[in-house]
This record gives sequence, C-alpha cells and structure tokens, in this order.
Amino acid sequence: MSIPHYFPSLGQLTKRFGTPFYLYDFTNIQQQYLKIKGAFAGRKSLIAYALKANSNLSVVQQIASLGGGADCVSLGEIKRAILAGVKPYHIIFSGVGKRKDEILEALHLNILFINVESEDELLLVEKIASSIRTEARISLRVNPNINPKTHPYISTGLNENKFGIPVQEAKRLYLYAHKSPHLKPVGIHFHIGSQLLDLEPLQEATQKISSLFHSLNAIGLELKFFDVGGGLGINYTDEKPIEPYDYAQMILKELRGTEATIICEPGRFIVGNSGYLITSVLYEKINDSKRFVIVDTAMNDLIRPTLYDAIHQIALFDSEKIIDTEILEHSHCTLADVVGPICESGDFLAKNIKLPPLKHNNLLIIKNAGAYGFTMASHYNTRPNPPEIAFNDQKKVWVIRSKERLESLWENELAYLKDKQ
Amino acid sequence: MSIPHYFPSLGQLTKRFGTPFYLYDFTNIQQQYLKIKGAFAGRKSLIAYALKANSNLSVVQQIASLGGGADCVSLGEIKRAILAGVKPYHIIFSGVGKRKDEILEALHLNILFINVESEDELLLVEKIASSIRTEARISLRVNPNINPKTHPYISTGLNENKFGIPVQEAKRLYLYAHKSPHLKPVGIHFHIGSQLLDLEPLQEATQKISSLFHSLNAIGLELKFFDVGGGLGINYTDEKPIEPYDYAQMILKELRGTEATIICEPGRFIVGNSGYLITSVLYEKINDSKRFVIVDTAMNDLIRPTLYDAIHQIALFDSEKIIDTEILEHSHCTLADVVGPICESGDFLAKNIKLPPLKHNNLLIIKNAGAYGFTMASHYNTRPNPPEIAFNDQKKVWVIRSKERLESLWENELAYLKDKQ
Repeated sequence: MSIPHYFPSLGQLTKRFGTPFYLYDFTNIQQQYLKIKGAFAGRKSLIAYALKANSNLSVVQQIASLGGGADCVSLGEIKRAILAGVKPYHIIFSGVGKRKDEILEALHLNILFINVESEDELLLVEKIASSIRTEARISLRVNPNINPKTHPYISTGLNENKFGIPVQEAKRLYLYAHKSPHLKPVGIHFHIGSQLLDLEPLQEATQKISSLFHSLNAIGLELKFFDVGGGLGINYTDEKPIEPYDYAQMILKELRGTEATIICEPGRFIVGNSGYLITSVLYEKINDSKRFVIVDTAMNDLIRPTLYDAIHQIALFDSEKIIDTEILEHSHCTLADVVGPICESGDFLAKNIKLPPLKHNNLLIIKNAGAYGFTMASHYNTRPNPPEIAFNDQKKVWVIRSKERLESLWENELAYLKDKQ
Repeated sequence: MSIPHYFPSLGQLTKRFGTPFYLYDFTNIQQQYLKIKGAFAGRKSLIAYALKANSNLSVVQQIASLGGGADCVSLGEIKRAILAGVKPYHIIFSGVGKRKDEILEALHLNILFINVESEDELLLVEKIASSIRTEARISLRVNPNINPKTHPYISTGLNENKFGIPVQEAKRLYLYAHKSPHLKPVGIHFHIGSQLLDLEPLQEATQKISSLFHSLNAIGLELKFFDVGGGLGINYTDEKPIEPYDYAQMILKELRGTEATIICEPGRFIVGNSGYLITSVLYEKINDSKRFVIVDTAMNDLIRPTLYDAIHQIALFDSEKIIDTEILEHSHCTLADVVGPICESGDFLAKNIKLPPLKHNNLLIIKNAGAYGFTMASHYNTRPNPPEIAFNDQKKVWVIRSKERLESLWENELAYLKDKQ
C-alpha cells in the first residue's frame, strides 16, 4: 500500500504529540468496510467487524455509523461496541473461553447471538439462560478441520486447534439445542484463520459447513444466519489478497437456494492497511559491520514482527516530504535493522531493510499497522501506551486516544506500598 | 521448584479476588536477594535488581529494604525504583534507546551512573550534561561478542545484537570521555543474555571485559565499578542453574588485585521462581482425540509460552490441597493443552502436560511466573490486567496491585468519541 496523498503533515503532529503514535486513515477504513459490504450486495448480510484487530472506540464508531456490526470475544469488547454505537442486535459474542458473568451480561444485553465453541459451553449457556428464564440465541462454531496455510499461531480451523466443534459432534449438539426450551439455534459459524491469501481452503470450509447447514435445514432445523467468519488477508509486502468479489461469489454459490443472512467478520481487512505507527530515530549504531537504527517505538507498541515474524514496510518522512518504501528500495541506501529501546534482541520493528543515513529525530512511518497493533500493546519496560490519532481525506485530524500518563502505570500499586513499611 | 509449605489458601483468595491473579512469595524474593548478595561477601558489591523482570512497587520495595539497588531501562522504571525506596545512588540507567528527556531527568536525579550503549548516545549525554553544567557519571556497555547459548530473543552479547559497544571502540570512547569536562567514566559493564545456565560464556565475557578494565587502569583511567550484568538462569523444569557461589568466585578471581566495586544485576534470579499465576478452569474440551483445558488466564497475562516457547509447570489446587507437578506426573492423568480464551492458536499456557479430569472452577497454579509475567501483560481482546497478591512465610497476605477496572481500558478514548458524531 502506498501512502495516500491526503496523509497529514507529520511535522505538525509530532510537534503536538511527540512520538511514537498510531495514525489511522478513517477514509480507508470506511472504504474497506463498504468494499466488503458491497461484495455481498443483493443478499441480506451483516458485516460484523472483529474488534480484536483494533478496538479503539472511534474506529468502531466509523464502522457503526455505516451500519456495521461487531464480532466480540470478551465482555470488554461488547461494551466497547455498544459505546461506539453498534446496535446490540448487530453484536456477536465469540471465543473459546467465555466466563459465566460474560454470558449472563450478553444475554441481558440481548445481543444477536452467542457463538458457542464446545459442549461444556453450550450446557453452561443453557443453564444461565434457564436461570434468568430466557431463551439464548446461539450459533455453533464448527471446526471444518482444514489447513488455512497461514502462520500456525493464527490458524484456527484444524481439529488440533482449540477452536470450534467437530462437524459430527455439531450435528448432535444442534439437535440438543433445538429441543431445549432455553436455547434457540439461529446460526452456524466457522473461522479457519487469519491473514488468509488462498481462496481454496476457504471454499473447502464453506462447502463442508454449508453441507451441514443444508442437512440441518432438511430436518427442519432452519438457521437464519450463515456466519463465514473473517480472516481475509491483506497486502503487507507483495501478497496478493483474495478479491472480496470472488470471495462473496464463492459463498453465494454455496448458499444458492437458501434465504440465509450472511454474516462476515472482517477485522484486519478493514483496518490493517489503514494504520501507521510513527516513530523518531534516536540513534544510529554500527556493531562491527551490522547497522542498527534505534527508534523510540518498540515491541511493546507493535509486537507483530517479534511474535509472528511479520514484515511491516517502512517509509521515511524528511523535511515535510514522504519517501515511500518503493523509492527507498531504489535509492542509495544501506541495509539496517530498525530496533527499539527494549532490552531484548527480540525487540525489532524491521530487519535488513534499505534506509539512507538517518539523524536523531528523523521520522519513520511503519506501515500497515492498523490491525493487531495497539490492541496487543503492553507496558513492558514501564513504557506508557502511545496516543492514537486519526485523519481523513478532508484533511481533518482527530485525537482518538490520548497518550497514557506515566504515573497511571503504577496507580493500582501505589496505595499498597505503605502497608508493609 | 516445589510449592512452599506456607503457600496461602487459594480458596479464600479466589473468593476475595476471583481469578486470574499473580501471587508472589516475598520470603523467597528476599532469600534470593540475600543469596546473591552473600555470594559476593567480603567484597564491596551492589546488587542492582533488574526491574524489567517484575517492577511492581512492593516487589522492588522488598529488595530496597535490604539495601538493594535498581537496574532500570526507562524513566518509568527509575521512577518506580525511587517510589519503592531505592536510593538514587543505587540506581543505574541502561538501555540502547534512551530519550533526551530521560537522560536529562536521570542527571537531575543524580543516579549512580548511566550505562551508555553507543557513541551517538555518549555524545548526547555529554551535550545534555554540558547544557545543565554538570558532569555525567557514565559506564560503557561493552559487547564481548560471545554466544551465551540461550533463546535468540534474550541473547544480547553478540556483535550481531543491538547491544553495547565493541571492545576496540570502547577503549577509544573511554579515552574521549576521560578528557571531556562533562563526562566522568566510573564503570564498565557487560551483559550477554538472560536465563544463562552455563558458566563458561560468562567466564569468557568476564575475562574479555576485565582485560579491558585492567588495560584502562594501566593508563590511569581508573574505573570504580565493574558491572557484570545479570542473566543468571533459574530452574523452570529440569535446568541446572549456575550456583551463585561459583559465579561470584569466577568474577572475584578475574578481579584479583583491584579495588573495584562489583555490580550485579539479577532480575529473573530473584523473582522468577517466586511467582505464580492462579487461574480457574472454564471448560474441558476434546477435539477429535486432542484434549484442551480452557482456563481464564491467557497470553495477554503471561506471554512467555507463546513468545519464547517457555515451559511453565502447572500444579493443581483441589479441595484445599495442592497437587504439585511431580505428583501429577505419576498419577493417572491424560495429556492436555492448557489454553486461554484469546482467539489465536498461539494462546496457550502449556502443551501436552499430564492433568486429571477437571471441572469448571478447578484451580491451576502456573509456576515460576514471577519474572517477565505481569511486566509483559497486555490488554489484548480488551482483557483487564489481573491483580497482584503477595504472601510470606509468616502466612501474611497483601494485595500489591488491585485488579484493573474494565472501564479504565477505554478511559483515554471516551472523551474523543463525540467529536466526530
């Protein structure tokens, strides 16, 4: 992805906020939402944005304002979705480890349905629904046992993964739920992994699950929602993402002859390419012949390179001019590792990339950092979280999360310090 | 490490705090500090605890109350150390990426010295010291280019790592600093990695650095402090840690004939075996033939298994009785993965360990979680940080960090939500 022409002036922003900070393109977020929504045109569909990718309230609000729903995996995410204006009947609650209090609250909030991931959980949902004399709308997450060909940590559709319920067992549980006065099966769900670039495993999974869906239909167990999960990959370097149109056509073909509402749960697809992490150069350093550019962001702000060997391209901002990745590729640069201040060798943002000689306070733009960036941030090495800023093609700029005060990191500890003196 | 006889009653604690929570053994923390301090008896020494391992104010206070110092890698950690009662002249400031404002504040606070990691940084420290008309006490972190034989992410003593200054260059920079009116070289420092189990690379590094130390001495550049860094490994499963006595003797031998004060910077050694992460079972689940125990803690609370393939042994707490790892090994159990609620396959706490059949609310004790546990915690999936509790051999129990309120996770975002409506 190249940087859009309406990118804001980093000179002004860094004067106001310092560095590092996250920067999101709201225009691109809305366009990506509309692209996937549009692909399912002519069919009832709900795009339930996966908050785990980026749960900033204002980001979610952008999607809610277009009618988008929310795929949530904790009570915290459900509360975020509601605060951001997502309608409760557009909210789905997924995840393998829902706590009792979370299930209870989700039922009270009357969300669209709970995506159940195991027999144990189904029985617990039934018990809780019964205790408050209600009927819980549920869907089962069915594990199609298909290899999605992505990083093992974000592959979720194999039986060796903790997710979902094997097909055979799902059928039995649907019949159980169908008979229960406290469970109302309304949907079927699958999700085979994240950052998927190959349509084939998705098609195989869709076929397997739609076959179960049709056979349930045939025995009178009509499900209203066919939830295809998320996982659509994006371009980080030279990946060729699946086209939303092809993806949607594949699904629509499998569902021909049914009235099911399609639910799709994109996360990374909507926000991944829409985010940037802006950082300043602190030092240049050469150890023997190896060059290091030390910057003021680190693995605690963006852990994807360390955790998933993810590659984030980097552009340069110099005297109010952006020098994008492709230009750096072709200019007279030398190879360098871009590393953070944290005391581990695992703390790097990029390895062996081409960069010109850099000075203290030069700005780097770490690209495609909109998904699984801020949401995975930690306070490791007692580093406060960076602020989050947004912009759009009208050249508007908003703060959407203020920088954390350093003192707030130990606020929950300070009161207990005296007790032991 | 087996669980001590004075371990508190988890029944009462979970009633009060729910789960998950971190639990620290203050008696063991003090004993470990005294063990390493005692190893250097008969010699001037400062044990500067590495806060990055566990920076809870009350944990640091335990060490400060025995006269311990602090090895800090950010202004945040320096402030924590001071709040916890560490004397400024017992504080060292290390790290490859110190910001200007951090260096300035460290000079104002008059800490013991700044561990400088590059020529660029040395020049910046000199400039800042000059601007406030002071003399900055410094040490150089010298990179001995030695393979410590540990996980690549926590290996730091090779030239291919970002850390320190090569030996040849260090000599030149010491001479430069010696002549500068704003720099006062007082120490020499090295640190080759974390979780070290082999004395040999440590000895090689000590020899290399002490040889530089002696040659600087010979030309009249007398350094008061010989800082051997940290990195002493601990027992997670069946490791054989280096004995503090052997370690100290090795160092003392290399420094024979000098008056240098030894500084040692243990982190994991002091707190690693002293911490536990307590979690409840949410569900049991079998996918095909694979067994999963789903618990209410996750990679956002303890990322070591995911990030470093670290192994944390797990004990079971059942009807007020602890069934420790060794007993589980020998009883009729089946293999299971212990996994969290987070939506990634990378979210696991243990793989293929022996466990008996478990029920909802059974308690698991994740052992050896005192170092790089809470300090690396994130809010991924909008999960609040767990509370931290401490106990000692007098059966006293203290809260040392309260559980985070869920609402505080979006406090810095809420005010900005209206702007765009």
